[in-house]
Amino acid sequence: MKTELTGLLGIKYPIIQGGMAWISEAQLTSAVSNAGGAGIIASGGRDVEWVRQEIKKTKTLTDKPFGVNVVLMDLNKEEKIELICEEKVDFVTLGAGNPVPYIKKFHEAGIKVIPVVPSVKLAKRVQDNGADALVIEGMEAGGHIGTQTTMALMTNVIPEIDIPVIVAGGIADGRGIAAALLMGAAGVQIGSRFLLASECTLHPKAKNKIIQAVDTDSVVTGYSRGHGVRGLKNSFTEKFLELERSGAPQEVLNELATGTNRLAAVEGDIENGLVQVGQSLHVLKEIKSAAEIIEDLMAQTKETLTQAANLLKE
Amino acid sequence: MKTELTGLLGIKYPIIQGGMAWISEAQLTSAVSNAGGAGIIASGGRDVEWVRQEIKKTKTLTDKPFGVNVVLMDLNKEEKIELICEEKVDFVTLGAGNPVPYIKKFHEAGIKVIPVVPSVKLAKRVQDNGADALVIEGMEAGGHIGTQTTMALMTNVIPEIDIPVIVAGGIADGRGIAAALLMGAAGVQIGSRFLLASECTLHPKAKNKIIQAVDTDSVVTGYSRGHGVRGLKNSFTEKFLELERSGAPQEVLNELATGTNRLAAVEGDIENGLVQVGQSLHVLKEIKSAAEIIEDLMAQTKETLTQAANLLKE
Repeated sequence: MKTELTGLLGIKYPIIQGGMAWISEAQLTSAVSNAGGAGIIASGGRDVEWVRQEIKKTKTLTDKPFGVNVVLMDLNKEEKIELICEEKVDFVTLGAGNPVPYIKKFHEAGIKVIPVVPSVKLAKRVQDNGADALVIEGMEAGGHIGTQTTMALMTNVIPEIDIPVIVAGGIADGRGIAAALLMGAAGVQIGSRFLLASECTLHPKAKNKIIQAVDTDSVVTGYSRGHGVRGLKNSFTEKFLELERSGAPQEVLNELATGTNRLAAVEGDIENGLVQVGQSLHVLKEIKSAAEIIEDLMAQTKETLTQAANLLKE
Repeated sequence: MKTELTGLLGIKYPIIQGGMAWISEAQLTSAVSNAGGAGIIASGGRDVEWVRQEIKKTKTLTDKPFGVNVVLMDLNKEEKIELICEEKVDFVTLGAGNPVPYIKKFHEAGIKVIPVVPSVKLAKRVQDNGADALVIEGMEAGGHIGTQTTMALMTNVIPEIDIPVIVAGGIADGRGIAAALLMGAAGVQIGSRFLLASECTLHPKAKNKIIQAVDTDSVVTGYSRGHGVRGLKNSFTEKFLELERSGAPQEVLNELATGTNRLAAVEGDIENGLVQVGQSLHVLKEIKSAAEIIEDLMAQTKETLTQAANLLKE
């Protein structure tokens, strides 16, 4: 399937893998890229040496395009950007800060720039400043989220923008991909579904908790403070939300939340850590290879798009 | 366009109008029904006599199917249900409570029953208890909202359910309708777009504030307390959210919020009242008749569905 995104990145399918902290490293990234999507290494919170190693390792595991996600509030972002430009990965996604000052530098290194934007205004700004594409991510996504949902972002942003728009947040099956493409998306970014890839290093206990979860097991901590993080309900989220509701100082909440992603994802403590995953949980039911996941997704996408003709006939 | 919903209700287009408190009365309801959708009278918070009058008035204004929305936490719900059964409207939508005890009574009166459900579990329960269809409403909707988004609900619920599913929340143009139908919806419920119908009695100042609003002007009060209400940012929401964050008692928040919908919608106080509207604000740009709105929506729906064939070709 060819879209503006497959053309831009030189990939087979219009799917990029979400950059997930403590999750997206060489193994998952290369598996997604080898399967015809575009894998992404999540550099957020990591040291520069780790990022260098993962980029080098990914290059040994795939000759297909892949990217790096940069969190622009990271203290060592400048060094990471320097490294990425040296290593000349195919593209970057940029979030949690103003991407505009970095676009030229990446372009000079031959790297495509795909900012994640929360609104029409910022979508227009990055477009005007030369971004190659952009990501809109609905608050049904796992991990750090904004306020607009996927349907609202698709309705508000896509008609206003000329560069390719990649839709993220709650898209976990081919029906969601078909819907996004039909609304004008050039492609989708998928995180949660790849958490169940056999190549994903997420702790088995966390994978199992996701498989067991039903739709109402999703919760957002910190929403009322403007720092929403989505994951699965557990002892940690219960404690956090009680403190949040009672007006606890932000520092207390920050301290409680620090390290909880790693605790669940790496250590497998799924009660005191936070299993970060999106809200479309009912279709996350089995562990498969990244290649199988992508083949399943694309088959369902095509089957779903085929049904449009039937709707028009009636 | 024929879908399971148009067949069930005997309507021309798969669009029902959201039941909006202080908004959805005879004039808007009949205009939507006359235009080929299904209008809905919002009985929530009203006295029984008002509901009787509006049903009778709607019957003089249209011979097409229309419905009544019942809020099951209303104190006078039993009397309203009695009245609706006497008046034999075509269908009811039921929210904010357990609809199961009322399904048989409505059916005996020849009235179709369409509960609004927040999860897969409750969707299955109302299906098993004889509901004719159901509504899933994403938290991008205006007014009182749940926690799941439209994309998450469509992904989670639709594949699990056999009766017609109506999708609501953030659907404000034909692209959104096409996406919902493609994901398996039998139809959509639209509220906010009809706020700008010329037949809608919403105060002109509130209509104008909606037209001026951009995507980031939407905010949810009470989300951290499990009582989310979406509307446009203003002095009221700022005050409410500050109190909410600081851990103010629920009674204080309730008292502050009481009457704010009516204050904006009827009195036109758009700073101290709450203009309840959904998050897909960028396409809410002009006042048109309900008939023009529906014709525009359906033309764009068909145009959007046509593009699926092009996506498959490439």
